[in-house]
Amino acid sequence: MIGTAVKELLLEKENTFLIPAENVANVMCLNPLSHALLVLSQVKYSKIPVLDKGDRFVGLISLSDVVDKMFDITSVDFDKLKDFTVADVMEVNVPIIGEEWELEDVLHLLVDAAFLPVVDDNQCFKGIITRKELLKAINHMAHELERKNIILPKSDDESIEMKVI
Amino acid sequence: MIGTAVKELLLEKENTFLIPAENVANVMCLNPLSHALLVLSQVKYSKIPVLDKGDRFVGLISLSDVVDKMFDITSVDFDKLKDFTVADVMEVNVPIIGEEWELEDVLHLLVDAAFLPVVDDNQCFKGIITRKELLKAINHMAHELERKNIILPKSDDESIEMKVI
Repeated sequence: MIGTAVKELLLEKENTFLIPAENVANVMCLNPLSHALLVLSQVKYSKIPVLDKGDRFVGLISLSDVVDKMFDITSVDFDKLKDFTVADVMEVNVPIIGEEWELEDVLHLLVDAAFLPVVDDNQCFKGIITRKELLKAINHMAHELERKNIILPKSDDESIEMKVI
Repeated sequence: MIGTAVKELLLEKENTFLIPAENVANVMCLNPLSHALLVLSQVKYSKIPVLDKGDRFVGLISLSDVVDKMFDITSVDFDKLKDFTVADVMEVNVPIIGEEWELEDVLHLLVDAAFLPVVDDNQCFKGIITRKELLKAINHMAHELERKNIILPKSDDESIEMKVI
């Protein structure tokens, strides 16, 4: 479990954790891959969320997923992208979190993901929590913890017992 | 400044921070972009290091940098990539760190970069430090700090003075 002092300092930056959905580029699962290529080549993220018609989160798509579909044996063919939709290549079973997320889960899941999609109870996409914003909070915590607190190493169990006796 | 207890716990994972150069895909600055496209479409990183003939680090290249050069007004043309080298599109003036890096700098620079190239005194590329490995160390620290230490909030200066008197 994450200790109280570390947790409280990390959560002082909590209101900056979520990048809201309206500021995150996305594509729809039935968009042709040629459209996804255009969007992905213009945004700074290497992966973006895929939504269905009801704005529900259904997966992620990367530039690499799209480019893969352009390759044939000898060359790269843009026209091939018109034959596929985003749903054909997107990554599914992606870790997501709810709006009432726990810091413990965010810290753990961001080891393996560059960002975490946040969804409401109906799976509607609400935004993302990124490693970048978490690392800002970690810098804050690492600098403030020992400025605001005194850290005393715990004695091991045996010595505590001896003192009690 | 990062406090001693936080720093020591983070550095317990120090030997896993560096992913050595031999395990990181790279391209040479004079490679044609068609080669870079092939390499970038096959690796898991969205950006990879660019080296010169002497294995010195000179920049980064992303799949997005390459795809941009394939676009013309109406379509995407793979053959255009043969007219350019990696050096024509790579990102330069990238933050790098030396082999004797400070944790403070790593924590600070990884807010804005997914990974940091590590170079020796001759600018030779030695590997990368990634957000992923740093976040593993942060998870370790966040869980261990209050298990191993007692955290006492510091009194403000006035009350300390009163106690001393």
